[in-house]
Amino acid sequence: MIMRFLHTADWHIGKELGAYSLLAQQTAAFNEIMQIARDEKVDAILLAGDLYDRAIPPTTAVNALEDMLKALNLTSELPIFAVSGNHDGPARLGAGKEWREANQFYLRTELAEAFVPIEFGNTQIFMLPFLDPLDARIYYEIENDSGEMRTINDVMTRVVADMKNEFTPGMQHVLVSHYYVTGSRNEDYTLTSETTSSVGGLKGIDVNVFNDFDYVALGHLHLKQASPSKNVQYSGSPIKFNTKEAQSEKGVFIVDIDDTGVNSKWMPLHPDKDLILLTESFETLIDADFYQQYERNGANLFSIQLTDQPQVSDLRKQLVDIYGEIAEIQFPKIQMEMNDVAKRLKEQEEVSNQTLIQEFYEEVMHDKLNQNQMEIIEQTLIGLSREVTD
Amino acid sequence: MIMRFLHTADWHIGKELGAYSLLAQQTAAFNEIMQIARDEKVDAILLAGDLYDRAIPPTTAVNALEDMLKALNLTSELPIFAVSGNHDGPARLGAGKEWREANQFYLRTELAEAFVPIEFGNTQIFMLPFLDPLDARIYYEIENDSGEMRTINDVMTRVVADMKNEFTPGMQHVLVSHYYVTGSRNEDYTLTSETTSSVGGLKGIDVNVFNDFDYVALGHLHLKQASPSKNVQYSGSPIKFNTKEAQSEKGVFIVDIDDTGVNSKWMPLHPDKDLILLTESFETLIDADFYQQYERNGANLFSIQLTDQPQVSDLRKQLVDIYGEIAEIQFPKIQMEMNDVAKRLKEQEEVSNQTLIQEFYEEVMHDKLNQNQMEIIEQTLIGLSREVTD
Repeated sequence: MIMRFLHTADWHIGKELGAYSLLAQQTAAFNEIMQIARDEKVDAILLAGDLYDRAIPPTTAVNALEDMLKALNLTSELPIFAVSGNHDGPARLGAGKEWREANQFYLRTELAEAFVPIEFGNTQIFMLPFLDPLDARIYYEIENDSGEMRTINDVMTRVVADMKNEFTPGMQHVLVSHYYVTGSRNEDYTLTSETTSSVGGLKGIDVNVFNDFDYVALGHLHLKQASPSKNVQYSGSPIKFNTKEAQSEKGVFIVDIDDTGVNSKWMPLHPDKDLILLTESFETLIDADFYQQYERNGANLFSIQLTDQPQVSDLRKQLVDIYGEIAEIQFPKIQMEMNDVAKRLKEQEEVSNQTLIQEFYEEVMHDKLNQNQMEIIEQTLIGLSREVTD
Repeated sequence: MIMRFLHTADWHIGKELGAYSLLAQQTAAFNEIMQIARDEKVDAILLAGDLYDRAIPPTTAVNALEDMLKALNLTSELPIFAVSGNHDGPARLGAGKEWREANQFYLRTELAEAFVPIEFGNTQIFMLPFLDPLDARIYYEIENDSGEMRTINDVMTRVVADMKNEFTPGMQHVLVSHYYVTGSRNEDYTLTSETTSSVGGLKGIDVNVFNDFDYVALGHLHLKQASPSKNVQYSGSPIKFNTKEAQSEKGVFIVDIDDTGVNSKWMPLHPDKDLILLTESFETLIDADFYQQYERNGANLFSIQLTDQPQVSDLRKQLVDIYGEIAEIQFPKIQMEMNDVAKRLKEQEEVSNQTLIQEFYEEVMHDKLNQNQMEIIEQTLIGLSREVTD
C-alpha cells in the first residue's frame, strides 16, 4: 500500500510586509495547493507549522485560515496532520483541536501529544510541535540547573527515543515537525535563510537524529533547498516573504511512502506576481530609464530600500504612481539612527517601554517616529521613571 | 416529552478586577454548574454569550474555557447551544466551530446562522449572537442612510419574523441570545445593572418581540432579577463581578419545556468567598474596630474605594496585611482629576492617544498615572502632534 502525502508548511497567514497584506497571494497559493491535492489524489496533508504569522493574528487572518482548513478537511475530506510552529500561539491555535480530531484533522500544539502517533494506512504519523528546551525540561521534570537538555538537539534526541518506543514494526514512520535541522546538504542554504541558527536562542538539530523515520516533513526554513536530506525535507513557504527569496521557486512536495521506500516530487506553485527588491536612491527610482525595465502597475510587488534620505513630502505617492503595488518602503539610514537611540535607552533599561511606544506609534500613525520624536519620548520615559521611583 | 435545559451566561472567563484574576472563582462556579447539570440530568446547556471577557482573552483564559467546554461536551457528552456576546470576539471564539458541531456543540457567532434552528427532541433551538444594527443592515442589504433598522428593536423584530418562517408547528421554540431586553417586570433592575441601556449605543428590545418563543435564554445583564418575564430570562453571571451585585445571589436556571408549557427553577451557586465593597477613609479602614466586623484573610474578597487621598507609601501593603485578598483599590479623587485632564485633552482632540498611553502605563506598572505624569504626557503628545503635521 502506497500512502501519498502533500507536504506544506509556513503559511504565515496574516503576514504583512510593512502595511501590505499578503493575504490575496496566500489565498491564491492555497487554491493552487488544493488543486494539486485533488489532481495528485493525495491521502492526507502534512502541515508543518507556522500556520499563522503571529500568536495573536488579526481576525482577517483567523477567518482566512479557517476557510482554508474547512476547504481541506470539511469540504474535501482530506485528513490533516499539523503542528504549531514558533510563530503560532499554541493555546489560541489549539483551541477546539479535540473536536477537529473527530474529522481526522490532527493538530498538535503540546509536547505530551507527540508520543501518541496516528495510524494512517500503513504509516504511523508522529507530530511534534515547536517548543523551547525549557518546555521540554518542564515536561521531563528536569531541573533547569542540572545541565541536562540544554540544546534543542538534546531535547530531540530524547523525544525521538521516546517516539521509537511507540513504533509498530512493519509500519512506515512519518514525523511532522518545525525546527532548524542541519545536514551536510543544506549548510549553505540555512546560512542564507531568513531564519538563522540563533533564532529563539536555539541551535540546530543534527539530521541523523531522524534516521529511523521514513520521512520527516519539516517547517521553519522557507526554502526547499534548506532540506538536509531527501527523507528530511523542508517544503518551504508557499509564497515569498522577503527579497532574499526573490530568486527561489515556491511549491509543495508530493511524498509517496511504502515499505520499499520514499519518493518525493516537487510541485511548483505559480504566483501571479513576483516580489522585487529595489535598493536605490530616490533619484534613480524615479528615473524612467531605470523603472521601465520592470513590469509595473500590479504585475509585480515591489519592496523598496532607499539608499538616501530624500526630503520629499509625497515620496510614497510618487513611488506608488510609478511602481503600482509597493509592499514596503524602508529607510535603512533612519533605521540605523533609531537603533542608536534604542541602544542608548537599553543602557538605561528603558528599552521595553520605548519599543512599545514605537510600535504603538507605528500602528496608530502608519509611520515611523523620527529622530526628534524619539528624543522627546526618551526624555519623557526617563522623567516618568523618576516620577515612579520618587 | 419534557426537555430539560441548564441556562447559564456571562461567564466572562479572563475577567480581572484591577490586577486580580477571577479565574479560581470562575472555575469553582463552573464545577458547581457541572454538578448541577449532572444531578438534574439536563438534556443540554444553553450558554447565552460572553463566554470570554474580551475579544482577545489571555491564553490562561483560553485554556480555562477550553477545559470547561471539553468537560461539558466531550467528557460529559452534554450538548451545548451557545452564542457569542458583546464581549466575545466572534472570529476568534468561533474558530473551529464547524468541527465542534459534529459533537452537538452548537456555537453561533454570525447573524446568518441564526435562521438555521437545531431540532433537539421536541424543541427547535435558535441561536442569535450579539450583533450591532450595522451588522444587520449589511446582512439585510439595507442602506445605512435609509432610516430602516436603526435600533436593535427594529433588527430583532425583523430577525424574529424570519425565524418564525422556520418554525415547525407542534414543536416548542427556544431562543438563546445576548441583548438588553426590557419589560415591565425588570425596569428597576436593568437601570441599576452594570450594563445600561446606552451600552454599545444600543437601546433595549421590547420583551413582546419574543412572544412566540416558549423560552428565551438571555445573557448580557448579570442579575436574574433583570429578567423581563418568566419565559424570557437572564440567568445572570455565575460569579459577582462588581460590588453593585454584592447583595445578589448567583446561580443558573433549570428549564423544563414540553407542549404544556415551561417551568424554570433557580439553582443558586455557593461561592466560597464573597465580594465586599468598602468605601471609607484610610484611617477608618485601618481601624481595628472597623475591620474586625468582616471575615478576612481569604474568607472574603475586598474592593476598596478610598474617600481620601492619603500620603502613605505602603498603602497597599497595609491594607493587604489587614484584609487579605484585595481585588482593587480605587482612588475616586485621583480618578476625578484624571478625568479633568482627559477632558482638557479631548478639547485638543488628543484623547485617544492619551487614553492608550494611560492604559499602557496601567498595564505595565499596575498603577495609575499621577497628575504630574499626566501633564508630561499631555505636553509630549501635543509636541508630537506638531512634529507630525510639520
